[in-house]
Amino acid sequence: MTGTPARTPVTVIGLGPMGQALAGAFLKAGHPTTVWNRSAGKATGLVEQGAVLAPTAAEAVAASPLVVACVIDYDAVHAILGPAADALRGRTLVNLTADTPAKARETAAWAAGHGIGYLDGAIMTPAYSIGGPSAVVLYSGPEALYADHRPALAALGGSGVHLGTDPGRAAAHDVALLDIFWTAMSGVAHAFALAKAEDIAAKDLAPFARGIGDLLAGTMSDYAEQVDAGAYPGHVSSIASAAAGMDHVIEAAEHHGIDAALLRAARATARRAVEEGHGADGYSRLTEVLGRPGAPA
Amino acid sequence: MTGTPARTPVTVIGLGPMGQALAGAFLKAGHPTTVWNRSAGKATGLVEQGAVLAPTAAEAVAASPLVVACVIDYDAVHAILGPAADALRGRTLVNLTADTPAKARETAAWAAGHGIGYLDGAIMTPAYSIGGPSAVVLYSGPEALYADHRPALAALGGSGVHLGTDPGRAAAHDVALLDIFWTAMSGVAHAFALAKAEDIAAKDLAPFARGIGDLLAGTMSDYAEQVDAGAYPGHVSSIASAAAGMDHVIEAAEHHGIDAALLRAARATARRAVEEGHGADGYSRLTEVLGRPGAPA
Repeated sequence: MTGTPARTPVTVIGLGPMGQALAGAFLKAGHPTTVWNRSAGKATGLVEQGAVLAPTAAEAVAASPLVVACVIDYDAVHAILGPAADALRGRTLVNLTADTPAKARETAAWAAGHGIGYLDGAIMTPAYSIGGPSAVVLYSGPEALYADHRPALAALGGSGVHLGTDPGRAAAHDVALLDIFWTAMSGVAHAFALAKAEDIAAKDLAPFARGIGDLLAGTMSDYAEQVDAGAYPGHVSSIASAAAGMDHVIEAAEHHGIDAALLRAARATARRAVEEGHGADGYSRLTEVLGRPGAPA
Repeated sequence: MTGTPARTPVTVIGLGPMGQALAGAFLKAGHPTTVWNRSAGKATGLVEQGAVLAPTAAEAVAASPLVVACVIDYDAVHAILGPAADALRGRTLVNLTADTPAKARETAAWAAGHGIGYLDGAIMTPAYSIGGPSAVVLYSGPEALYADHRPALAALGGSGVHLGTDPGRAAAHDVALLDIFWTAMSGVAHAFALAKAEDIAAKDLAPFARGIGDLLAGTMSDYAEQVDAGAYPGHVSSIASAAAGMDHVIEAAEHHGIDAALLRAARATARRAVEEGHGADGYSRLTEVLGRPGAPA
């Protein structure tokens, strides 16, 4: 190890698939790595790679100046680390658990009250990406704290992005991006069901679906400009024509007995916009419609 | 015009934005082009480019061996072309109107009963793409008929794809792909609303949203393989963890008074899968869950 600078010791709390990936990446980058998980069995592979399994969360925390948590939600963070708050004092907690922006801000306030340095983070790519070039991890919280720990966090790979000092900002990006991902993937699962009912194999639909993916990427950027400008031109495609298109999809799905509640919910918002006189506007107008309360459905 | 082979005369019925794009592309490729629309005013620009405006649909049909229809839906096709069925006899109708696979099959049967050659088609790209390299138009119906008219249809640009002889096949692809597109774009509109409520400008979310778009494209291909194999591995991401992620998004949206009916519908399907014992499976399992009737919601 001559000539290699000493790596910051890191503790990883939570060894689900993502926590295991995080600990594995720290180990590979040469950080002394302590791990803890509610069920210790998940640590076996990491211990074989050189990690130290701590018997309690407090002991795990005490082993490193940098503690990374990745558990099921922030209630679990508090259940695990609340009793270890004294051990955390003077250390930095980087909370990569996924939850809401409000919970991130509450947790930052709790950390401040206990003298714990706190960065909130959100992991935007799958566990297998961690440590590789495609990983995307978003952070928010004190800039100086991020600067201090950036060299260690670089072990997670790809791009780490600091989004600002509001501790809820990473979680806010996370929920907005998960909103797109899970809504879209639900549409994909539904489309494959509809295709199957029409005797189209998923592999035959997939190349066209990828083309739709490309169209989505370009359309997203156009919508973003429209949303920021508060102007929703309908010359390419109007909300009224979108609603008509959705009618065909819903009719085709229900013809085959496939639940169409998802697209029915999308159409209800489009119809609300049409009823409010926006039928000739572009679909990006729905951002404005969704953002204010309407009549109960 | 010496040396230029004569182009097939083409009639275009319906001059909405897409019909105008179709007629414009035929004109640019040198086809004698006759047009008709319920309100004749929409033909002005095309007539300036050399199109002939026919006074009735029957006269428009009588002007060309190839008739392309692109109107609001198949009910409109029948309302316009039903009375012109005698004029259509012996000609080919390429119906690029969007509707359901069932309506496409009914219309093919109607055409056969009147001695009309019939191809059904679906346009998968926006009006501005028509005539350019990125246009995608899907066709289904008799292969020989498609081969006959392929040279004229090439004027529409990009890739024309013949999907088989079932006249409903192009429409089946169309509804499945629209299902993805409108569901996903509804998620994007919703995500921008959530981001805005969290003081994130759409332009700041957009680069990450495009990253999600790339992730979607790759995930779609994985899901397609899983759906065709009927095997839904959950090692990358399980339905249960997806449902937990959706909980955060719904909570964050409703915290800001933003309607979350769309993602609530998606979550209801995920929860149904969890209740049926599939929580540890991958999300592609939902294709199978959606494809068979469940308990009423």
